[in-house]
Amino acid sequence: MSEFGSLESRVRRKALLDKVKSPEECVEFFKDGMDLGWSGFTPAGYPKAVPIALADHVEKNNLQGKMKFNLFIGASVGAETEDRWATLDMIDRRWPYQTGKNIAKGINEGRIRMGDKHLSLFAQDLGYGFYTPKIDIAIIEVSAITEDCGLVPTSSCGVIGEILMIADKVIIEVNTGQPSFEGMHDCLIPQTPPNRQPFLISSSNDRIGTSAFPCDPDKIIAVVESKHRDKGRAFADMDATSEAIAGHIMQFFGDEVKAGRLPENLLPLQSGVGSIANAVVGGLAQGPFKNLTVFTEVLQDTMLDLFDSGKLDAASACSLSLSEEPGFPRFFENWDKYADKIVLRPLSISNAPEPIRRLGCIAMNTPVEFDMYAHANSTLVGGTRMINGLGGSGDFLRNGYLKIMHSPSVRPTKTDPYGITCVVPKAPHIDHTEHDLDVVVTEQGLADLRGLAPKDRAQTIIDKCVHPEYKPIIQEYFDMAKKETLAKGIGHEPQLFDRCFKMQQNLAQNGTMRIKNWDINIDLCE
Amino acid sequence: MSEFGSLESRVRRKALLDKVKSPEECVEFFKDGMDLGWSGFTPAGYPKAVPIALADHVEKNNLQGKMKFNLFIGASVGAETEDRWATLDMIDRRWPYQTGKNIAKGINEGRIRMGDKHLSLFAQDLGYGFYTPKIDIAIIEVSAITEDCGLVPTSSCGVIGEILMIADKVIIEVNTGQPSFEGMHDCLIPQTPPNRQPFLISSSNDRIGTSAFPCDPDKIIAVVESKHRDKGRAFADMDATSEAIAGHIMQFFGDEVKAGRLPENLLPLQSGVGSIANAVVGGLAQGPFKNLTVFTEVLQDTMLDLFDSGKLDAASACSLSLSEEPGFPRFFENWDKYADKIVLRPLSISNAPEPIRRLGCIAMNTPVEFDMYAHANSTLVGGTRMINGLGGSGDFLRNGYLKIMHSPSVRPTKTDPYGITCVVPKAPHIDHTEHDLDVVVTEQGLADLRGLAPKDRAQTIIDKCVHPEYKPIIQEYFDMAKKETLAKGIGHEPQLFDRCFKMQQNLAQNGTMRIKNWDINIDLCE
Ligand SMILES: CC(C)(COP(=O)(O)OP(=O)(O)OC[C@H]1O[C@@H](n2cnc3c(N)ncnc32)[C@H](O)[C@@H]1OP(=O)(O)O)[C@@H](O)C(=O)NCCC(=O)NCCS
Ligand SMILES: CC(C)(COP(=O)(O)OP(=O)(O)OC[C@H]1O[C@@H](n2cnc3c(N)ncnc32)[C@H](O)[C@@H]1OP(=O)(O)O)[C@@H](O)C(=O)NCCC(=O)NCCS
Repeated sequence: MSEFGSLESRVRRKALLDKVKSPEECVEFFKDGMDLGWSGFTPAGYPKAVPIALADHVEKNNLQGKMKFNLFIGASVGAETEDRWATLDMIDRRWPYQTGKNIAKGINEGRIRMGDKHLSLFAQDLGYGFYTPKIDIAIIEVSAITEDCGLVPTSSCGVIGEILMIADKVIIEVNTGQPSFEGMHDCLIPQTPPNRQPFLISSSNDRIGTSAFPCDPDKIIAVVESKHRDKGRAFADMDATSEAIAGHIMQFFGDEVKAGRLPENLLPLQSGVGSIANAVVGGLAQGPFKNLTVFTEVLQDTMLDLFDSGKLDAASACSLSLSEEPGFPRFFENWDKYADKIVLRPLSISNAPEPIRRLGCIAMNTPVEFDMYAHANSTLVGGTRMINGLGGSGDFLRNGYLKIMHSPSVRPTKTDPYGITCVVPKAPHIDHTEHDLDVVVTEQGLADLRGLAPKDRAQTIIDKCVHPEYKPIIQEYFDMAKKETLAKGIGHEPQLFDRCFKMQQNLAQNGTMRIKNWDINIDLCE
Repeated sequence: MSEFGSLESRVRRKALLDKVKSPEECVEFFKDGMDLGWSGFTPAGYPKAVPIALADHVEKNNLQGKMKFNLFIGASVGAETEDRWATLDMIDRRWPYQTGKNIAKGINEGRIRMGDKHLSLFAQDLGYGFYTPKIDIAIIEVSAITEDCGLVPTSSCGVIGEILMIADKVIIEVNTGQPSFEGMHDCLIPQTPPNRQPFLISSSNDRIGTSAFPCDPDKIIAVVESKHRDKGRAFADMDATSEAIAGHIMQFFGDEVKAGRLPENLLPLQSGVGSIANAVVGGLAQGPFKNLTVFTEVLQDTMLDLFDSGKLDAASACSLSLSEEPGFPRFFENWDKYADKIVLRPLSISNAPEPIRRLGCIAMNTPVEFDMYAHANSTLVGGTRMINGLGGSGDFLRNGYLKIMHSPSVRPTKTDPYGITCVVPKAPHIDHTEHDLDVVVTEQGLADLRGLAPKDRAQTIIDKCVHPEYKPIIQEYFDMAKKETLAKGIGHEPQLFDRCFKMQQNLAQNGTMRIKNWDINIDLCE
C-alpha cells in the first residue's frame, strides 16, 4: 500500500479485484495489428505500466516490426510509452497528435501512418466509428473504480468516453502512485446525432456530467496497479522574445477593454502548447487583469503561478499537463489551493465549438509560421515534415471571440542567426486560413487584422510583425505581386506562383531564407 | 394598394406612416464614405428601391467615384444593386460575399476592398463592432412592421439583428409586391459573451426566437414602399457530370445507412450554392430516402422538388434563395404546401457551429478545386482571383457529421476541353484544410477519406477522383514527391516546392494543365 491508498481502497467494485494482474501478465492479450485506445492527453493521464511491459516484451524477444498497433489516444503521451514504441517499430497508425523525436522520425520517414484532425472532431468521429469500427483493447489509467463500475480518470479525460463506446476489451491501470483526482472531472459521453443534447456550459466552472465514465464490467479483462507518474517536460524560462510578445498582448487586451469590446476581467482564456503560450500566461500573472477564467485544452505549469497570483478564479481543461518536476509535486503539495477551481473535461467537451463560442474564449496559439495574408502553418515544418500535429488549435482559433497567433519573427539556422523568417509570403502548408485569425503577434509588434481586406492585411503584417532583416525582402515581393496581378485583373490576393516559395527553396539550398533578390529563371521544359 | 395588401396594412406601427418617403427622397441621407448595412442574403430579401435610386442619382449626376460606401450585408445581393453599384464605382469595402461580373472585376483590379470570412463569424463579429464601430445607415427590406416596431423580414434574415445592434439610422423598405413572409422567421439577436445563451435547437424546425427583430423606432428615418422582387437566377439543368456526382453520393449514403453510421432518414442536409449542389438535391428527390430534414444556409429551386416529392419534412435556412422565374412564382402559388415546413433564421444561428454539430448535418459544397491531400480552394481561381467568397462553406464543412465536397474532375479552357483539372497536387489557395473534409467526389468516383493518413488519402483521391487524362500525371508527381522527401526523412505529406505549381504555371503560359512532363529548370539567381 502506498501513501496514497491501497489498490483495494481504490477499486470499490470489489468483484474486479479478481481480475488483478501484473503488467507482464497482460502482454498475452495483445496481437499484432490490433487497434488500441488509450486514456491520456499531452503527457497526462496515460497508461504506463502495460505499455512499458509490452515494449520490454518486444525488445527482449526481438519482435520489432512484428507487433505493430494502431494507436488512438486523445493527444500525445509520455516519451517512455509512444516514443519508445516508435523506436521498437510497434506503431502502424497513430491518431491524432504525438510528441517525440523517434515517433516524429518514424512518421517523416514513412513508417508510421499518422493522421491529425481537429481534436474535437477526432473525439466524436472516433466514437462514431470513423477511424475503426471497434477498438480491440482499451488501456485506461484511473484514480479509482466506483461501486457501479465508473472509471474515475487521473490527470486528463482525453477520449476515454469515446474509446469505451467502441472497445471490445478494457485493461485498467489504477494509479496509486499519486493522489486520487476524484471529483475534479466532469465526465459525459455525448450522444450520437440526431440524439445529441446541448452542452449547457455557461461559465468555465459549470458542470454538466458526472465524476466517472460508466464502463461495462464484463469488458474489463485486467486491473493493473501502477505507480508511474506522468512525465511532462518543464518549459524554458521566459526570454526577451516571449516577454515582448506577452507585452504586446497585454497592451492589446487593455486597449480592447478601453474600447468596450472586452469586459474588465477579459473573457475565458485559451492558451496553447509551448514556451510562448507559457510566457503569455506568465504575463497575465503579473498583469493588471483580475477575476480571470480559463477555458482551454491543457493547463501548463505557469497556470499555477496565475492561480497563486490570486487573479484566476476558475479553469477548465482536458488535461492537467504539468511537468514531472516541479509542476506535479507543487500541485500535489498545494492540492486544496487548486483542486476546487479546476474542472477536467472530456476532449469532446473541452474543445467543442459550442461552449467555446458561447463563452467567447480568447484563443492564443503558436504556429510554425504564418504568411502575410494570415494563413498559418501549425504542423509541417518546410511544408512536409510533421512536428506534433494540429491539436486543438483549430477548435479554438475558429470559435474564439478573439483568435490570436503568436510566434517569434525569426529563428536561427546552423549558418545564419536570422536564417528563418516565421512570417512568409505564402505558407507552404496551411492549417488555419486567413478566415480564422484576428490578430498575429511577433516580438516586433501586434497586427490587428479584424475587418481588413487581404492587401490591407498583408501591409499591416509586414509593417508590424516582420523582422527588420526581412522587411525589405517581403515588401518587395508584395509590391511586385500586386503590380503583376492587378495589371491582369486577377489581384484580389496577389501571389506569384513562380516565386512564392523562393525563400523556402533557398533555405533548402543555401541555409537561409534571406535571399539576395527575387529573380528566378524557370524553364518549364514543355 | 397591391394585391398583397397596402403599405398601411403592412406598417402596423402607425406613427411610422409619418416617415413614409419615396426612394428618391432618401438619397439626401447618404454621404460619401458611409458604412451601410443591408438586409439580404444570396439574392433574397435585400433592399432594392433605395439602392437603385442612389445608383440612378450617381449616374445622372456623374458622381462615379465620389459617392463610395462600405457595404456590410449577410451575403450577395441582386445584380441590379451591388453589381450596378460596382459599375458606378460606389463601393469601397465589401464584406463578406458577393456575386456579379462587375463587382468581381472591381475586386480583382483592386478598386473594391472585399474581405470574406466564415459567415457565422462575420455575423457575430459585425455585431461586436469588429468591422466598424457603427453602421451609419441600415437599409432593411421587411414584410411588415409590427405594433411594437418589430421588423418582419422577407425572404431572408441575413444579419439584420447585428446591423440593428450598431446602426445609427435605419431606412425600411416595405415590400408590398409579394406576399408577407410573417410567421416564417425565427428571429433572435444573440447576446455578446460572456452573456450568450445556448441555442436550444434540437431539430431543423425548432424555434427559439420571435417573428420579428426589435428596432428602436427613433432610429428609423424613412419608410419606403417597394414592389421589386428578388432577382435570383435559375440553374442549368442537370448534366451528366452532376448526375454522376449525385449518384455516387446516393450510393454512399445507402452504404452508410447499411453500416449503421447514418439513420434511415439520414441526418439534416446542408447543400451549398451552385449547379452541382442543386443536382444533388434533385437526386434526393428521386432517391430512396424519406422523412428527410434540411438544415442549411440557402434553399434553392430544387428544394421545392424535394418538398413536392413528399420526402422532405422540414427545412431550416437563412434565405429562400429561389429564382425570379420559375422559383418564386411557384413558391407563392403553392404557399400553403411549403410555408409551415420552412424556418428562416438569422445567419448567426443558421450557420452556428452549435446547432450544426448537435444536429449532425451532412455538409455538401462545391469548391473551385481540391488537392490530393484534400485541401480545398473555394474562393480564388488560380490562387488570386476572387469569384464569390467563402460563404458558409466552412461553417458546415468544419462542423457537419459528414463533410463532403463535390466538383467536376475537369473543366475546359479555350484551347483544351480537358484544360483544367479540379484535382491538383497542391491547391494554390486554401479555404478548407485536410483536417476538415471527410469525402471528396467527382463524376469519376467518391473518395472516403475518414481515418486515412495523408499519403493514403492522396492515393485514394488519385484512384477515385482524378480524370483519366490527369491520372498518370498526378500519380507521377506523387511518386516523385514521396521518393524525394521520404529519402530525406521529411515525407509526412510529400510536396516538391519547385514543381508543385507547374500545372498552374503551364495553364497561364500554354492554356492547359496537361503538362508533358514534370521536368523543370530553376535558377534561383542567388
Ligand atoms: C508549432 C509548435 C511546435 C511551436 O511550439 P514551440 O514550443 O514554440 O516550438 P519550438 O520552438 O520548440 O519548435 C519546435 C520545432 O519546430 C521547429 N520550427 C518551428 N518553427 C519553425 C519554422 N518556421 N521553420 C523551421 N523550423 C521551425 C523548431 O526549430 C523545433 O525543431 P526541433 O524540434 O528540430 O528543434 C507548437 O505550438 C505546436 O505543436 N502547435 C500545434 C498544436 C497547437 O497549437 N496546440 C495548441 C492547441 S490547444
Ligand atoms: C466554387 C463555386 C464558384 C462553384 O460553383 P459552380 O456553380 O459550380 O461554379 P461555375 O461552374 O459557375 O464556376 C464559376 C466560375 O469559376 C470558374 N472556375 C471554377 N473552378 C475553376 C477552376 N478549377 N479553375 C479555373 N476556373 C474555375 C468557372 O470557370 C467560372 O468562371 P466564369 O464565372 O468566368 O465563367 C461556388 O460553389 C462558390 O462560390 N462556392 C463558395 C461558397 C460556398 O461554398 N457556399 C456554400 C455555403 S452554404
